[in-house]
Amino acid sequence: MLRPDSPFAKAAGAVTAPDAAAHAAAIEHLDRLTKPPGSLGRLEALAARLSAIAGNDPPPLPAPATVAVFAGDHGVVSAGVTPWPSEVTAQMVVNFCAGGAAINAIARQMGAEVVVVDVGVSAELEDAPGLIRRKVRPGTSDISCMAAMSLDEARAALDVGAEVAALLVGGGTRCLLTGDMGIGNTTPSAALIARFTGRSAREVTGRGTGIDDAMLATKVRVVEEALARTAASVATGDTLGALASLGGLEIAALAGYIVGGAAARVPVIADGVIAMAALVVADALCPGVRDHCFAGHRSIEPGAGAALEHLGLQPIIDLELRLGEGTGACLALPILQAAARVLGEMATFDQAGVTHKR
Amino acid sequence: MLRPDSPFAKAAGAVTAPDAAAHAAAIEHLDRLTKPPGSLGRLEALAARLSAIAGNDPPPLPAPATVAVFAGDHGVVSAGVTPWPSEVTAQMVVNFCAGGAAINAIARQMGAEVVVVDVGVSAELEDAPGLIRRKVRPGTSDISCMAAMSLDEARAALDVGAEVAALLVGGGTRCLLTGDMGIGNTTPSAALIARFTGRSAREVTGRGTGIDDAMLATKVRVVEEALARTAASVATGDTLGALASLGGLEIAALAGYIVGGAAARVPVIADGVIAMAALVVADALCPGVRDHCFAGHRSIEPGAGAALEHLGLQPIIDLELRLGEGTGACLALPILQAAARVLGEMATFDQAGVTHKR
Repeated sequence: MLRPDSPFAKAAGAVTAPDAAAHAAAIEHLDRLTKPPGSLGRLEALAARLSAIAGNDPPPLPAPATVAVFAGDHGVVSAGVTPWPSEVTAQMVVNFCAGGAAINAIARQMGAEVVVVDVGVSAELEDAPGLIRRKVRPGTSDISCMAAMSLDEARAALDVGAEVAALLVGGGTRCLLTGDMGIGNTTPSAALIARFTGRSAREVTGRGTGIDDAMLATKVRVVEEALARTAASVATGDTLGALASLGGLEIAALAGYIVGGAAARVPVIADGVIAMAALVVADALCPGVRDHCFAGHRSIEPGAGAALEHLGLQPIIDLELRLGEGTGACLALPILQAAARVLGEMATFDQAGVTHKR
Repeated sequence: MLRPDSPFAKAAGAVTAPDAAAHAAAIEHLDRLTKPPGSLGRLEALAARLSAIAGNDPPPLPAPATVAVFAGDHGVVSAGVTPWPSEVTAQMVVNFCAGGAAINAIARQMGAEVVVVDVGVSAELEDAPGLIRRKVRPGTSDISCMAAMSLDEARAALDVGAEVAALLVGGGTRCLLTGDMGIGNTTPSAALIARFTGRSAREVTGRGTGIDDAMLATKVRVVEEALARTAASVATGDTLGALASLGGLEIAALAGYIVGGAAARVPVIADGVIAMAALVVADALCPGVRDHCFAGHRSIEPGAGAALEHLGLQPIIDLELRLGEGTGACLALPILQAAARVLGEMATFDQAGVTHKR
């Protein structure tokens, strides 16, 4: 159970449904703008959803934007689910702080800030620009044979995420993007997505950063073992228990971050399969929080597709990405910002003196 | 035939194949960057193509960028192919120059400049900020019964496009986006795409800005008539003759603009079905010019899909747009710019001290 006075629980209690009246006003407004009705396709639906989230038509521009990259390590790496050693997580955190990773290059183009949150990296990290040090524990336990973390640790990670969201919004951010780094983290993501969508391990487990058939077979088996252990030890409907059982620390923190953004009525752009696992958890802990979120892209990981379907979200872009870090969310950001500008800046037929169709 | 000393012919003569060595260098470079190989999916292919077009790895950032909206009217409107009156073309040009149209709102988000080129608007237009006045003739003739324009007018429109590209690149633009405005222009676009891809009128003719079944049947019949008339009067392989026969003026100018961009080794982002018609024509007049172009998006117009397949281009985004104006190209711009930054700004494994996979 959550503690009612915790940062996460307070954020979850503050989440309200998007504003149906603002949504309806935006839909009507879109048809008065100087374009054939509906001709901006899915951009119009994005614009209307932004209005609903903000409770206003036109919606505020979702800028400035921040990508928070939550980093954590995974005990399950020792079960042979990835060819990358866990030490890469900490090395990549250093790379993020130095500005040399993919998310840095992409965020610079999009005018987004990047912060990194150490919520569970195994190594001790030194202070660095853009690094928020909130380690709950140094990596999870191996979920193939035991719970990833305790219930208290899961609560603490949720709180870290909610607090980071509040910190960023308090600092002026008006759009939150999810990012993640954690060698091995597609394994707990697949397990969580399977648990919450009812899909099988085989359906939702993919090749992550690129593994061969033998390693994929191991990974599927590990996810099956983690699910069987969790089914035996965690009651159906015990979301916190399932999160603690299957992990990971950055996924729990991302769930808190998503709820924190929704509580602040700031749109959240979710990245790939790790973010999808976090969003599935977040929506189970705080029903309807999905309505404050956009799916930035469709990861090629099969679990991402299963989660998108479960959540009823249609991704903004589909570039066959499978990197994580928030790259897919960040590539979608300017499209969402452009959608807001359509409602905020376009002239109506009356204003522009343009003749409507006969 | 083209006149060898014309701006268009000179541009076409200056187009060279993209640089295979730079492409190969980019592919190799991408695998040394701090990310799992291939994990940026189609963004990596975009980055490598930018290198090939520029002849350098890393490629220059495709910025600043300009959307040139070529505007023209269409005599075929009198055949009942659209519910919008031709006067809207000139009204929308005024709207573009005042900054109130969809392309203005989207371009502001993307940091792109918008210019409008009157190459064939029926009405006389007054000087306005951002308007380039290069009218070849005030609208085309009705292609359901006669040629859209003369061969000399088609040549003049091609020259306008090539000259506008040179003007913009000379002014510092490093990425050219296609835009278009012309009530009725999905009809000549469908006809040109059918003529150059060998598809039937029915396969490539769509609902444009939104027409009912009866008007769609009329539109298909008009395209069939225009194709039959052209088949009888223009020899197979006579690209200029087919362009003059089927129109329109803004499509011809866009073909010239695309070739002008390629001649300057500046990447060109093509928008929707109008741009696809222009690109099909441009590639017939200047074989291989497609290799300097990116398809910004997949328009829901069926002709766009047929042209994309014919050209072997995969669109960057797919948001079910059908507006034109360059909106789809502009929404894709930051993704292409981000692709350039991946090669230009990411650290390699060696540089960042990140361990490679085992």
